[in-house]
Amino acid sequence: MQYGYFDDEAREYVITRPDTPYPWINYLGCDDFFGLFSNTSGGYCFYRDARMLRLTRYRYNNVPSDAGGRYFYLRDVAADGSVDVWTPSWMPMKSELDRYECRHGMGYSRISSARKGLAFSQVSFVPLKDKCEIHNITLHNESNANKNIDMFSFIEFCLWNANDDMTNFQRNFSIGEVEIEGSRIYHKTEYRERRNHYALWAVNVPVEGFDTDRQTFLGLYNGFDHPQVVFEGQSKKSIASGWAPVGSHHIKVKLAPSESKTFVFVLGYCENPEDQKWAGPGIINKAPADALLAQYGTPEAADKALAALNTYWKGLLGRFTVSAEDKKMARMAGIWNQYQCMVTFNMSRSASYFESGIGRGMGFRDSNQDLLGFVHLVPERARGRILDIAATQFPDGSAYHQYQPLTKRGNNEIGSGFNDDPLWLICGVAAYIKETGDYGILDEKVPFDNNESLADTLFVHLKRSFYYTVTNVGPHGLPLIGRADWNDCLNLNCFSKTPGESFQTTANFESGVAESVLIAAIFIFVGPDYVEICRRTGRADEADHAAKAIETMIGAIDAHGWDGDWFLRAYDAHGKKSAAKSAKTERFLSSRTVSPLWREWDLTTDARRKRLIPSRNILTRPTALCFYSRRTKITILS
Amino acid sequence: MQYGYFDDEAREYVITRPDTPYPWINYLGCDDFFGLFSNTSGGYCFYRDARMLRLTRYRYNNVPSDAGGRYFYLRDVAADGSVDVWTPSWMPMKSELDRYECRHGMGYSRISSARKGLAFSQVSFVPLKDKCEIHNITLHNESNANKNIDMFSFIEFCLWNANDDMTNFQRNFSIGEVEIEGSRIYHKTEYRERRNHYALWAVNVPVEGFDTDRQTFLGLYNGFDHPQVVFEGQSKKSIASGWAPVGSHHIKVKLAPSESKTFVFVLGYCENPEDQKWAGPGIINKAPADALLAQYGTPEAADKALAALNTYWKGLLGRFTVSAEDKKMARMAGIWNQYQCMVTFNMSRSASYFESGIGRGMGFRDSNQDLLGFVHLVPERARGRILDIAATQFPDGSAYHQYQPLTKRGNNEIGSGFNDDPLWLICGVAAYIKETGDYGILDEKVPFDNNESLADTLFVHLKRSFYYTVTNVGPHGLPLIGRADWNDCLNLNCFSKTPGESFQTTANFESGVAESVLIAAIFIFVGPDYVEICRRTGRADEADHAAKAIETMIGAIDAHGWDGDWFLRAYDAHGKKSAAKSAKTERFLSSRTVSPLWREWDLTTDARRKRLIPSRNILTRPTALCFYSRRTKITILS
Repeated sequence: MQYGYFDDEAREYVITRPDTPYPWINYLGCDDFFGLFSNTSGGYCFYRDARMLRLTRYRYNNVPSDAGGRYFYLRDVAADGSVDVWTPSWMPMKSELDRYECRHGMGYSRISSARKGLAFSQVSFVPLKDKCEIHNITLHNESNANKNIDMFSFIEFCLWNANDDMTNFQRNFSIGEVEIEGSRIYHKTEYRERRNHYALWAVNVPVEGFDTDRQTFLGLYNGFDHPQVVFEGQSKKSIASGWAPVGSHHIKVKLAPSESKTFVFVLGYCENPEDQKWAGPGIINKAPADALLAQYGTPEAADKALAALNTYWKGLLGRFTVSAEDKKMARMAGIWNQYQCMVTFNMSRSASYFESGIGRGMGFRDSNQDLLGFVHLVPERARGRILDIAATQFPDGSAYHQYQPLTKRGNNEIGSGFNDDPLWLICGVAAYIKETGDYGILDEKVPFDNNESLADTLFVHLKRSFYYTVTNVGPHGLPLIGRADWNDCLNLNCFSKTPGESFQTTANFESGVAESVLIAAIFIFVGPDYVEICRRTGRADEADHAAKAIETMIGAIDAHGWDGDWFLRAYDAHGKKSAAKSAKTERFLSSRTVSPLWREWDLTTDARRKRLIPSRNILTRPTALCFYSRRTKITILS
Repeated sequence: MQYGYFDDEAREYVITRPDTPYPWINYLGCDDFFGLFSNTSGGYCFYRDARMLRLTRYRYNNVPSDAGGRYFYLRDVAADGSVDVWTPSWMPMKSELDRYECRHGMGYSRISSARKGLAFSQVSFVPLKDKCEIHNITLHNESNANKNIDMFSFIEFCLWNANDDMTNFQRNFSIGEVEIEGSRIYHKTEYRERRNHYALWAVNVPVEGFDTDRQTFLGLYNGFDHPQVVFEGQSKKSIASGWAPVGSHHIKVKLAPSESKTFVFVLGYCENPEDQKWAGPGIINKAPADALLAQYGTPEAADKALAALNTYWKGLLGRFTVSAEDKKMARMAGIWNQYQCMVTFNMSRSASYFESGIGRGMGFRDSNQDLLGFVHLVPERARGRILDIAATQFPDGSAYHQYQPLTKRGNNEIGSGFNDDPLWLICGVAAYIKETGDYGILDEKVPFDNNESLADTLFVHLKRSFYYTVTNVGPHGLPLIGRADWNDCLNLNCFSKTPGESFQTTANFESGVAESVLIAAIFIFVGPDYVEICRRTGRADEADHAAKAIETMIGAIDAHGWDGDWFLRAYDAHGKKSAAKSAKTERFLSSRTVSPLWREWDLTTDARRKRLIPSRNILTRPTALCFYSRRTKITILS
């Protein structure tokens, strides 16, 4: 079955039928505001943290799947009074469409459809720097008759904390609050109490009416596919008080043959300083909403914001372009892998259609690795990320395995003990310096354990990372695995018979015996980067000292990590060899040499252009490097 | 709008239309297995713990509301080939019905409906002692023509841990496992790894086919209201592997005019000893399933189990019956309040349509109070509960505010510091002894903090409870409130500016100043029970000592807790009076005297029957006692 194709020229993936086997989504947003957007306009958005500051409600693993998003219901009333209600993004009504197309582009998506002479277009994106989604809706009369249309928008608000929102009903059925002013619907739950922010769902034209109470809009026991208000054709101006606050505009649209009209919907997040929360008793201060909407009051303004986003992405992808004999290789390395790396950098797997956004936050290991694929795109953001990550490191060099993007604090629930983690900080910092030459970052003061009083330079963080591995070795001189190495499922010290208990967080056996050959390999893979950093910053003695530690580790691998044919994988908590001979373990390719980019660092820019092997930066998983470089000739053009 | 009525004779509430403003539910189950069952067959079931061992998936706050349950789809194929698909419980298809009725009775519910000459009846209950729901389905042909019907059952399995089930998709989309044998569908996710239990969804007749993969059954992007398999009329024998395991039987039913057929569906929970998990490689040991199903193989056997349940409830409610001039009073006190007290005892508010079953477990305070309304029904279970609760008490007399029903361990997340909690243990134990005369419970050894090495007698637990209040007093000699007193929202020491942070679990201000007059009142309300227990168990010195402490507390209330017109409510963390004069606080009625049931304890049974005031046991909230007793004459008949 063919569901779509790549449009390389437009840098878009084009989905040609709505009923994809699973929702195919795009990630909107480049900075702090993000939206997950499926090919049928499903999904949700949040500000900075998918758990703590979620604007719209979304039900994972739902029936029907992907029910919930930014919906537009069209009620097309013909001259004879016959009524046709449909949803142009196919879902939630699964409307039969005469045309359908969804284009997922760089930070935006465009759904185009048509039914019975009425064409619909929705361009959805998060503008640069602003905290909102824009949905630019165009209706076009392709028929020969006048069209009378009632359009109803629909979103469902999340009461901010997405986890509480789906578990604590005793509370959250009682707290929903909204405020309405003209065409603007404000979601202000908890604003009276401890929040200084609200959400906004607005359209740039006058409305016939609105609804903010879900049950009023949908009717009893109705799904999103049969909202009572839409089928009755008249909004009820409901004001949510508790239960489920939603946002729906009712707009009357008259279209002559060939006429088009465009509407700009804005779904935004607004904050006020604590002392400027109120405009009057119980009336929220709308200044930030005014400022936000002032920028997107017309279709032209919204188009301009989209053009700026396009320019931004053109610039980003212009830094590293790829031509290859294999068109798919060029497309992947030149466009989609870089796009995906940026998404990964932004979300660090915290929110997708498989990560519910409430579970984990950002990974220490992951986020460092993500840098490799991202650092050439926006190095200054990579720099900020490195400092955030390093601040969650413990004074002994170990690290919280995860941290919350909003608070930037280590996640106590999962804790520490993933003994490969510290090494990835060296890997990430080295990648950043290789790309930027910014050795100054090494002198930045960074807290340990988010505690300013424990702050020291980033270089000291790297040093602690390095020696954490050196000093935490087992009987064979190989690194202790702790809870896991790169393979989170290799829990040599974690034994649990309790159903549902996480192997990652269960009490550690602390055998003092279980050793990971893979961590040893990572050590001799990133260790030379640390040595090189020392050398290049006038720390020759430390470089020599570290180099010796690497040699010692290589010795340990040779003596105890090599089985004659293959490297061992590990020693378990009982000292037993894991994956001896019988299992095929990856050989450690090129890991004993300093990675080539250091050598080229001192060459001219021109010379760098001539490199014929890819930077590790292309790929988030460095071990895949050799595999790629041998199969495909890649030329760096800019 | 009239949605139903009470049938006092049958002890049932009769719902006469399915589209109630909110799902109206019954609680099935008396022991360890429980089902929440709405008037349209929505809801879910679990074994012992709604969070840890949930059998079926349920989505709270869903759209449509209450979508998900035990569903039966009927596909009625007429002689001319025309097809009528409908759901006799109305939801999920919202089928138009010629008749509809739901009767919620004592531990069972009965849905009856009809459409186009086909009558349907569903009797759902949890049999005594067994770990299953039974759904007895009868189809009756009321038409003059033969009927050819395809019946499809449908449930959706939860992957046991209900919280993980709705958050951790990276994992749970990959782990679903089933096994099918004839008419039995086994849900065995994680059984291979750490679980020793599985779920069973079976019917007592041969099936045409089955489905266990949700998407196969429903089709892409379909809701429960339009399952593809049903509309196509043929099951696909899908075997779930990951994604969403469901259970659907496909049964062909032929009915002559006036003919009826009955089918017994069993939804059960089965456990195996660790060393008897397997019948063969990868094949689960089905012995417990065999044993379970052997009891419910025929409609007659299922009827017998229902009759036993009816007898059980008749016995329970026969212990305390009420005749009153006010029929509603008699109905409430004689039937529904007692029924509700049993439900509350079983669930302690941990699962309802407003408590998601994953949030809180059982309350220390709540569970003690629940005893008051339950103790006369099944005293031996009340006894067990008291010992469970007491085991979560800390050695200093304070207590975990909540504990998990499955593990019976204190809940660390919410912790301690609700300073009224300890006193309710005295209240609950006193109620138990008054009802049973079982002073022996005071000699039971009970751990502190679930630690056997800290165990001491239950009497010592009561003593520590009593003196926890005595020794934790503030500047006015009134009890320190800690995090809260009976009013969880009166957080005089808990200040938080962080949105979403719980006032109950945020770091305690620990002013050492905030005092609760209400805790003082609770103390002098339950304190005399402690004194009386001492006296009746030969602890005269301790009785005198405790009586003096009560007098001291009364003195503190009179001196510092009385404002001239009203009692104060509290002193806050800054020593400021709360609710002085301006606010109306409840007067402490009859709290200074020993409660009358002690005095009557020594009278003959006959004399007890003549009591004209209700026991506190009727009501879960003792303060409501006086209110009731003054308005209504209640006669205890047995």
